[in-house]
Amino acid sequence: MALLVQKYGGTSVGTTERIEAVAKKIKKFKDNGDDVVIVVSAMSGETNRLLSLSGSISDEPEGRELDVLLSTGEQVTIALLSMALNKISCPSKSYTGGQVSIRTDNAHTKARIVDIDVRKLREDLDAGLVVVVAGFQGVDAEKNITTLGRGGSDTTAVALAAVLEADECQIYTDVDGVYTTDPRVVDSARRMDEITFEEMIEMASLGSKVLQIRAVEFAGKYNVPLRVLSSFKDGSGTLITVDRGNEMEQVAVSGVAFNRDEAKLTIVGVPDIPGIASKILRPISDQNIEVDMIVQNVGLDKKTDFTFTVHRSDYKRAKSVLDEVCKKLGAEKAMGDSNIAKVSIVGVGMRSHAGVATKMFEVLSDEGINIQMISTSEIKISVVIDEKYVELAVRTLHSAFDLSAETA
Amino acid sequence: MALLVQKYGGTSVGTTERIEAVAKKIKKFKDNGDDVVIVVSAMSGETNRLLSLSGSISDEPEGRELDVLLSTGEQVTIALLSMALNKISCPSKSYTGGQVSIRTDNAHTKARIVDIDVRKLREDLDAGLVVVVAGFQGVDAEKNITTLGRGGSDTTAVALAAVLEADECQIYTDVDGVYTTDPRVVDSARRMDEITFEEMIEMASLGSKVLQIRAVEFAGKYNVPLRVLSSFKDGSGTLITVDRGNEMEQVAVSGVAFNRDEAKLTIVGVPDIPGIASKILRPISDQNIEVDMIVQNVGLDKKTDFTFTVHRSDYKRAKSVLDEVCKKLGAEKAMGDSNIAKVSIVGVGMRSHAGVATKMFEVLSDEGINIQMISTSEIKISVVIDEKYVELAVRTLHSAFDLSAETA
Repeated sequence: MALLVQKYGGTSVGTTERIEAVAKKIKKFKDNGDDVVIVVSAMSGETNRLLSLSGSISDEPEGRELDVLLSTGEQVTIALLSMALNKISCPSKSYTGGQVSIRTDNAHTKARIVDIDVRKLREDLDAGLVVVVAGFQGVDAEKNITTLGRGGSDTTAVALAAVLEADECQIYTDVDGVYTTDPRVVDSARRMDEITFEEMIEMASLGSKVLQIRAVEFAGKYNVPLRVLSSFKDGSGTLITVDRGNEMEQVAVSGVAFNRDEAKLTIVGVPDIPGIASKILRPISDQNIEVDMIVQNVGLDKKTDFTFTVHRSDYKRAKSVLDEVCKKLGAEKAMGDSNIAKVSIVGVGMRSHAGVATKMFEVLSDEGINIQMISTSEIKISVVIDEKYVELAVRTLHSAFDLSAETA
Repeated sequence: MALLVQKYGGTSVGTTERIEAVAKKIKKFKDNGDDVVIVVSAMSGETNRLLSLSGSISDEPEGRELDVLLSTGEQVTIALLSMALNKISCPSKSYTGGQVSIRTDNAHTKARIVDIDVRKLREDLDAGLVVVVAGFQGVDAEKNITTLGRGGSDTTAVALAAVLEADECQIYTDVDGVYTTDPRVVDSARRMDEITFEEMIEMASLGSKVLQIRAVEFAGKYNVPLRVLSSFKDGSGTLITVDRGNEMEQVAVSGVAFNRDEAKLTIVGVPDIPGIASKILRPISDQNIEVDMIVQNVGLDKKTDFTFTVHRSDYKRAKSVLDEVCKKLGAEKAMGDSNIAKVSIVGVGMRSHAGVATKMFEVLSDEGINIQMISTSEIKISVVIDEKYVELAVRTLHSAFDLSAETA
């Protein structure tokens, strides 16, 4: 008998038929003797429907009212799922974030969980009930409704698992696990049985959008075993843990991630003086534009080139800010390119394996793919390349690092 | 400067355009120096959408979960209306029933309000905010979400007006007031400037479905001045008060109400013994069938006839129950007729005017309309007639009692 926290995303509860299917799935765990706490998202499409209602009234609705509006999405799902469970004689009770209560700070639309009072949940679990909790939402100290931001339901599930000291936090989604790369690009991509939190964070932030990165960080921090599984087909999914055990010593690279959502900006011939980086980036961040990779070349002649990437949707705004900065700093010119892609190899094994970076660069070079930017961390190496080469690069790297199903 | 509680129903907030129109209307009151508390229903169609979701999962969903589900309807509206108000520089804040808090008993789907804590609302009003409250919903002592039943938003508005000691509770709806009868039947039907609570209760329960009867009773009990107005056109509507002042002495009859939703059932030749009425009606009420009019004729030969009306949708069930009762009691026979209509004249003036009933019966008789049942109260007289005569009866009575606009 285990205590499981299971999260079902919007697609898994997208119709009443699917909600009934999820109820049957949950009942199996309960019949098996497990205690189950369920966290659900809004039915797929519902959040967008609500956003379009608010959008037709105001371009900039207050966060407080937006949260009141959006939180209804999950509230609908908890009620329907509880009904479906009760109907198949699996006694259940639903809770909104406020009812649990999940206390957050007051940063509307992107609140952080401060505290969870699980007394009621424990009582219900002891009474044999399946507890269904609305993901994504909480209340601040003043009982104002707050939301945790997109994908926040994953965070709710992990936080509940942490506080309840659950045996596992299971994230049910429309994929059956974490793959070595996108199976739509590489046929032989392989589902990983296990992956470390660190690897998962690098994979997630690089575009393998299985799990919210914040939830993974949270799970890592509180050491909550996290498993990604499919709502629609059976299988053991991918377990995200602290330690991959034996495997860790053998494999240098666990996966290949990629991302086409970025654009590159370069300011050329800027004076190489202390504080120049912040002089360039401050005006960008003042516009609420997030910067991802940053590369500064070694300066020659007391001049340097400075390159960074932003989300592609911010490209035009960022470029015009940079044009201003260029004039102000007396730099030579500002350039940009939105036809780029970022490709990364990720793996905790990389730490102890020399030559991984070299091998990556050689493999790409052999295919005639020019590397425009390089950025490295302990467990990943990212390169920016011309967007048109992205599939070729991913396939080549996936094969070069022996990630394919046939060779595993 | 007044403190107004205004309630806008589902049609008034049925689209985001209408919500913006309501916001503009509210701003005018605020600009005029009034303090305003707004109560809203779910956008029209929303409650039915939610019911159909739950219906596709369970025929008999638990009340608790149904309330969690349905309460999202009003929550969506409060958020959107607050956004619309803020957008036009009319600072506003929304509250769910639980946030206010509106405490109810735990009778899910038909809860009664026990207590309202208006401290937060008062603070907001003092700070110059328009407060927008979700109608129809509350929370019980355990913080479970409850709803007040269909039309409960009117009750929320009246309850808030009572606790806040508002100067007026204004119910905005899609009609511009209470009429002497249905204008679709009688062209010359006249909007009443004032009507008493008692008259309104009789009019409402008889089919002039402008206001929830429970809200009117509530308003009467706490002496809350209640006004019915149109959301869509200007006008002073109809004020519902304790006392109609001067007018009361002059007019015997205030309005003509009618209802086609009933069916008549008769049990003939039943033994005229003590307790016979309950022997007949108990099996009916045990089936949760509500009985409206009840008439028992004077018994002859120790036998009596007993007639009552039920909602037309309950007719078949009621008839088969009555057939059983008939056998059991050894009565002659059970009969029924669903092609009937109830027509009533209502007015506090009736109390002091002799001959009102006589006049009513004469007027109907002159038109050749046979009266099948009669039932009277202090301020109304109802008759059951053949359904096909209903328009004729209503027009004739409306004219006979001088209710038409031309003659008023």
